[in-house]
Amino acid sequence: MQLDALFSPRSVAVIGASQNPQKVGGMPVQLLLRLGYDGPIYPVNPGAAEVQGLTAFATIDAVPAPIDLAIVALPAASVEGAIEQLIARRARAAVVLSSGFAEMGEEGAATQARIAERALASGMALLGPNCLGVMNIRRKLFATFSPAPLAGVPEVGQVAIVSQSGAFGAYAFSLARKGSLGLSHWVTTGNEAAVSVADVIDWLADDAGTRVILAYIEGARDGAALQRALAKARAAGKPVIVTKVGRTEAGARAAMSHTASLSGEDALYQAVFDATGAIRARTVDEMFRLGQAFATGSTPAGRRLGIVTVSGGVGTLMADSASDLGLELPPLPESVAMPLRERIPFCATQNPIDVTGQVTADLPVLGLAAQGAATSGAYDALVLFVAAALASPLLAPSIVEMVRKAVAAAPGVPMALCGIADEATRQALLECGCLVFEEPTHAVEVLSAKTRWAAQRIEPQPQQPAQLEIAPALLNEAEALDFLAGFGVPAAPHRWVHSPADAVAAWRALGGEAVMKIVSADLLHKSDVGGVRVGLRSEQEIREAYDGITGAVARLAPQARQQGVLVARKLAPLAELMLGARHDPVFGTVLVLGLGGVQVELHPRTAVLTAPTTAERVRAQLDALGVLKLIGGWRGRPKGDADALVDVVLRFGSLAAALGPRLGTLEINPLMVTAEGIAAADAVVSFVEEAR
Amino acid sequence: MQLDALFSPRSVAVIGASQNPQKVGGMPVQLLLRLGYDGPIYPVNPGAAEVQGLTAFATIDAVPAPIDLAIVALPAASVEGAIEQLIARRARAAVVLSSGFAEMGEEGAATQARIAERALASGMALLGPNCLGVMNIRRKLFATFSPAPLAGVPEVGQVAIVSQSGAFGAYAFSLARKGSLGLSHWVTTGNEAAVSVADVIDWLADDAGTRVILAYIEGARDGAALQRALAKARAAGKPVIVTKVGRTEAGARAAMSHTASLSGEDALYQAVFDATGAIRARTVDEMFRLGQAFATGSTPAGRRLGIVTVSGGVGTLMADSASDLGLELPPLPESVAMPLRERIPFCATQNPIDVTGQVTADLPVLGLAAQGAATSGAYDALVLFVAAALASPLLAPSIVEMVRKAVAAAPGVPMALCGIADEATRQALLECGCLVFEEPTHAVEVLSAKTRWAAQRIEPQPQQPAQLEIAPALLNEAEALDFLAGFGVPAAPHRWVHSPADAVAAWRALGGEAVMKIVSADLLHKSDVGGVRVGLRSEQEIREAYDGITGAVARLAPQARQQGVLVARKLAPLAELMLGARHDPVFGTVLVLGLGGVQVELHPRTAVLTAPTTAERVRAQLDALGVLKLIGGWRGRPKGDADALVDVVLRFGSLAAALGPRLGTLEINPLMVTAEGIAAADAVVSFVEEAR
Repeated sequence: MQLDALFSPRSVAVIGASQNPQKVGGMPVQLLLRLGYDGPIYPVNPGAAEVQGLTAFATIDAVPAPIDLAIVALPAASVEGAIEQLIARRARAAVVLSSGFAEMGEEGAATQARIAERALASGMALLGPNCLGVMNIRRKLFATFSPAPLAGVPEVGQVAIVSQSGAFGAYAFSLARKGSLGLSHWVTTGNEAAVSVADVIDWLADDAGTRVILAYIEGARDGAALQRALAKARAAGKPVIVTKVGRTEAGARAAMSHTASLSGEDALYQAVFDATGAIRARTVDEMFRLGQAFATGSTPAGRRLGIVTVSGGVGTLMADSASDLGLELPPLPESVAMPLRERIPFCATQNPIDVTGQVTADLPVLGLAAQGAATSGAYDALVLFVAAALASPLLAPSIVEMVRKAVAAAPGVPMALCGIADEATRQALLECGCLVFEEPTHAVEVLSAKTRWAAQRIEPQPQQPAQLEIAPALLNEAEALDFLAGFGVPAAPHRWVHSPADAVAAWRALGGEAVMKIVSADLLHKSDVGGVRVGLRSEQEIREAYDGITGAVARLAPQARQQGVLVARKLAPLAELMLGARHDPVFGTVLVLGLGGVQVELHPRTAVLTAPTTAERVRAQLDALGVLKLIGGWRGRPKGDADALVDVVLRFGSLAAALGPRLGTLEINPLMVTAEGIAAADAVVSFVEEAR
Repeated sequence: MQLDALFSPRSVAVIGASQNPQKVGGMPVQLLLRLGYDGPIYPVNPGAAEVQGLTAFATIDAVPAPIDLAIVALPAASVEGAIEQLIARRARAAVVLSSGFAEMGEEGAATQARIAERALASGMALLGPNCLGVMNIRRKLFATFSPAPLAGVPEVGQVAIVSQSGAFGAYAFSLARKGSLGLSHWVTTGNEAAVSVADVIDWLADDAGTRVILAYIEGARDGAALQRALAKARAAGKPVIVTKVGRTEAGARAAMSHTASLSGEDALYQAVFDATGAIRARTVDEMFRLGQAFATGSTPAGRRLGIVTVSGGVGTLMADSASDLGLELPPLPESVAMPLRERIPFCATQNPIDVTGQVTADLPVLGLAAQGAATSGAYDALVLFVAAALASPLLAPSIVEMVRKAVAAAPGVPMALCGIADEATRQALLECGCLVFEEPTHAVEVLSAKTRWAAQRIEPQPQQPAQLEIAPALLNEAEALDFLAGFGVPAAPHRWVHSPADAVAAWRALGGEAVMKIVSADLLHKSDVGGVRVGLRSEQEIREAYDGITGAVARLAPQARQQGVLVARKLAPLAELMLGARHDPVFGTVLVLGLGGVQVELHPRTAVLTAPTTAERVRAQLDALGVLKLIGGWRGRPKGDADALVDVVLRFGSLAAALGPRLGTLEINPLMVTAEGIAAADAVVSFVEEAR
């Protein structure tokens, strides 16, 4: 979406401009005037010739020059008309601050939909309604009614904030100011009638002034668009830190009650974040910490962390944290360790490198350790814990100087300093490109996040397959297995038979022990009605089973159409999986992968993926589920073919994505991995009418 | 241990007192003088008549009055002699600041052990060596060489800090000062030759001036003593916040390299913390946050949290966090909700209670919501998110006043305020008994920690059973099952036979399907040598199995003594457990509980408990493992007897504890839970010589 006029308008009209600078229609005028927006400002107010010292216009039509961005601060009932007039005037963007739309009920939602449709059709970028507006810090554009900028504006920087929630956005603005985090843009999207958080991220991915994006999301309307925008930002090398609330049921309930947006299942958001390298922050604190961290210094080239500390205890604490987060702690090379030990007898030169409290007496040794470790080639990132030394006016300047030298000597090795520091010292260190934290584990956490982000492979987003045209239907099990086989998902060896004699012939042809099941599209739970027999090993057992199955089903489920019997060879699986797909209104096609078996049902584990997906993501999920271990020759058992399994999941995913909204049920349970290959042993397949 | 003289000495001698106030022997003199210790100070220095303006004495013997506490700041080689002289002078306590003992190697360790033995024998409380000393903030006693108090001392308060690490202790002191956390005592225990962190906690549990204890631990020498001290503090109603480092392998390696203490397995520490209600902090931040939280306001009577917020988004974030932590979010009673809705049209009156940004215009509504919720009886604790309102000099005083009223109206409902606040406002709120956080989820976390702590049942610590006198031996399986049965641990129905005919008779007597195993104390892995047969259902199969087993073992393990064959009835377990015990040098008897089965081995789960233990703790671990669910009639399966299972684990634990250091191996694998009862199906039992 073209959002240039929203962020960098050549002119701004305020529709419903107020003389009172505290009002919704007055605050933007006040902010634009006081904070130095350099383009023309056109207040529109039918009852005033002047607004806050500016010439006012009675109507939108009366504005004598082109309107680039319109700030709409009218009662809800007047918004639609104003948007029509703005479209007629070819305004390129509008920020609708007014509330009273989808969040108020059906009528408001209908008006909102009409406004959005008109804006989209005419190419106008419409932000809101029910939003707090937008700011471009560099351009000094404050199209908002939040009074927060009056108390001070953060410096111009390279971090953009985009928030669905206005209150959260305002709070984040205050936190940025308090934490001296430099901002490029600030946007709140409110009801997202047209412009969504995804659209803003997409635009920011192209914006030269933005290096890091902080996003706050309650629920997206279009999961695929969100995924595309996040992938674009990742490809552009811009980390996106996401706070997505409503993780839990209680949270989702709370989110629903306060926004008008449909919120999908949290695991799906997580899958999208995982697929695109978006970094999830669980707290506001963490969001800002990560934002500052990604805006400062380099990213680690690998997982090797060096820890230099004046306290062995805190060193251990950081080592614990590094270990939790999968970082490695290689020892200090002897060439650096030796001179350190000569200087400080108690110095521990493994890793953590404990230079002990001695440094207070002999500060240069800290520089020796830090610069030595940074330039040794043994580490991809470095943390230094200096306790209260930074708070000492005597020591702080020397430490800053020492850090400046170490960073300059090893610019590719990001460095974080931990300890008590005053704001001036903190700023001086940040300017050197060195992160600063009071809490030692925070340093390890952000370096780990930077490491993971840098290691994320930028892969092409998979192509959506062409839609499969198919009529609504519910397949029986034999048809379902055949249908899947047609798309490259192999079935367990089986025959569909219609007499005891054919069953016997099938068993002989298949070999081994047989499983028999009734074939009927009307029966989902076949064993409940005597429709399944297992462990069949002789002609007599096969014949008895055929009659037993058809008889029992006729007796217990008389209304079910009987379509014959399936004879299948019993397999010896290394792993039994469940593989399913569904169509989600927000995320489109979604795959669910699970591990079977009774003990696992006790501690259930499933993974979700949006489809189509990639081999890498499928492999990562199979690994997380323990499947790769289970089929990887674990405990002396035979190996399964992991590549073939990944391939089957990908084919299944492509098929599901091709069905799109016509997907009813697509489920294989179990999908068996044997030493011989992959086989669907049972499947349910149905197609539905495409919902509008 | 009697530590009164350590914390409140009537007089202090500084052995090795220095004229230079920056030196180890000079700093304590400087601190005691400058910070106002009110007892007599006796510097001991053979080469000076005066030290920092005080009369000095050439020797310990020359000190003309009784010495209550001696601060020893001598070279390591002179410490032992000084301690002897102090004992002769009946000094009641000594703080040994000197390093060069166990942390330096075997010789140092031997000297340290001698000193400790002498001190313990004479009743002298010996702190250190290699420690940073002790402070009693109220008494203005600063028996330390840390210069930290020179930069300012925290106010007198009710929080005590005890740290094994000196550097961590010094850092914690600075953090307390910076965070305005009032302290009672500060202790670092260093090498813990005599006085340990556990001894200090034990003493603080009785100290009237201490309400909350912050403890930093790298490794305890006596796990049972630690557990007793923590239980005593819990019984005294004093929360202990513990930071135990060395959680991970990397961390444990780091901890080992820098202290002289043996560190047990982390899971055992966790078991001790769980059993005693100690609250574990994973970061320094969290440790101080919890310390402040437990020192301020009341504790919640239950799990019902009310959330009042000016931002729906942040409300959702807090609801997510509350849900993660098991708190409940009941809706606001209608009697409170109705007037709120009348006042603010967009107000969400479920929970989170979203009073919206409107409050900036109508602040009293926040008080209406907060006090209404607090006094409604619907909540056990309350969090309020006010965004940046507290930072406004206009709004802050009114908010503080409003909070003061709400806390007074509902003193039993702890309250936490979240938002940006300056230090004065923060202090004013803390003085009202209201917690303050910038990060909203922190408020939820500490209230959850307080809730869990308050709900911890104070149960009597289990009694150590009398030691069982038993000679070293390795039992065979039949003997092992009999031995366990003698202590109330039932075995699966079985017979120990010595001929095929007896085996057949045994099978007939037992009924059902049989399992047969070789009996030999020399064979741990019986199936590897053909010593196990299963699924035996006829006389012929039993006879063949007898001959097959004895023949195979004779061939494959000719040197193993054959002691007959065990015939056991095959059971149909609802759950298979592993139950083991071992003797740990730090924690004494330790029980290990695990769930069996191949899928569980893929994602292993075990629990550890110190023994003897209580029914409540065993039940909690069985629950965490999923066993209670598995045997609780899960998925329509029969139920097992959970009480009987708990009882068997308790009996097993008592037996293991009675064996104490004579315990070699005690393991039941599997322990079967069937619909009929609990049965050990296989066991390994051995006894060893008691190690010195």
